[in-house]
Amino acid sequence: MPMTVLKIETRGQGLYEFTERVRQWLNTEPVAEGLLTLFIRHTSASLLIQENADPEVKTDLRNYFGRLVPPTTDPSMSYLTHTYEGPDDMPAHIKASMLPESLQIPVSDGQMVLGTWQGIYVFEHRDASHLREVVAHLAGS
Amino acid sequence: MPMTVLKIETRGQGLYEFTERVRQWLNTEPVAEGLLTLFIRHTSASLLIQENADPEVKTDLRNYFGRLVPPTTDPSMSYLTHTYEGPDDMPAHIKASMLPESLQIPVSDGQMVLGTWQGIYVFEHRDASHLREVVAHLAGS
Amino acid sequence: MPMTVLKIETRGQGLYEFTERVRQWLNTEPVAEGLLTLFIRHTSASLLIQENADPEVKTDLRNYFGRLVPPTTDPSMSYLTHTYEGPDDMPAHIKASMLPESLQIPVSDGQMVLGTWQGIYVFEHRDASHLREVVAHLAGS
Repeated sequence: MPMTVLKIETRGQGLYEFTERVRQWLNTEPVAEGLLTLFIRHTSASLLIQENADPEVKTDLRNYFGRLVPPTTDPSMSYLTHTYEGPDDMPAHIKASMLPESLQIPVSDGQMVLGTWQGIYVFEHRDASHLREVVAHLAGS
Repeated sequence: MPMTVLKIETRGQGLYEFTERVRQWLNTEPVAEGLLTLFIRHTSASLLIQENADPEVKTDLRNYFGRLVPPTTDPSMSYLTHTYEGPDDMPAHIKASMLPESLQIPVSDGQMVLGTWQGIYVFEHRDASHLREVVAHLAGS
Repeated sequence: MPMTVLKIETRGQGLYEFTERVRQWLNTEPVAEGLLTLFIRHTSASLLIQENADPEVKTDLRNYFGRLVPPTTDPSMSYLTHTYEGPDDMPAHIKASMLPESLQIPVSDGQMVLGTWQGIYVFEHRDASHLREVVAHLAGS
């Protein structure tokens, strides 16, 4: 079963598309029918499949989750105790719990069966820049 | 690896059970032990495994998420920018981010290992009627 | 494809780590490269991969989701109708919808490709003690 690690660079909170990176890797593997799994090796960033037509959707997603889970400096979050790694750290763990750690996409004729508007993203929840590791695993024949 | 596309009709926001459709398809496939993956090819509807005993659970789930992510006409959502596809559109993308895009269910003796009360649903987040495509993929032997 | 059922005891709302239970089972199976799936057979408890370094993270996660989805005795939840199984029941279904029902973890060299801080948990959403069934399924060779 083919497996690789994709390294995705992030520069602060938000969505970073890497659909093409996945597609390019799939094209190098001789699997026509199967199941692709993507798994992020972190607890403060997520994977997400979402619309890639209108960039406003990315901005709105970042802002919605940023309000649903504000920084620990916000008075509404004063009950949180894990604050010594920065005001964005515990909210990052919470968002990483609500949003996918892994994605599963069936593969047919060597292509992911994504819908027309579906793109694949790393959703970064930390303020600082990070290099995120996504394990890609392909089962099939 | 067997694969098919199930088309699920929805008529506005809410949960639509299709457990039997999945079961019927499994019964036609000669796989005894394996892994079933369901994947929805849309960014404004979700898949969900939830209780199918009491229909009130479905209503309560629709209403809870409808309040957590209200329409963009709600003053609390005025910061959202992706509004030209209707007041239910950007909330649909947000709900589709928080709820599963895909489901994975082990198969044993040709049957899904679902718990007693677990049913499989499309969770529609748009107001209009839609025909939703769910890819079903079965790996095993 | 190897499959087993892990039974996890819970004593009220919160996170219960069982990474070592999974690791021990993997060590008994002769699969070097593959995909591990964990599936919880319940609609009022979740699975979660989260940081296992600092126990405060577990407490904060329980408290955040306990405030986001308060008991049905809370006035803000008075619109909910499925209340006859106790004030923690419908919130448990809601939390189980927002948090993972299943986890997928690639396996390489016989080990899960977890990141340094990633632990595997049952996230119990009910107040009473429960014995939760988690199906573990391993595909590969």
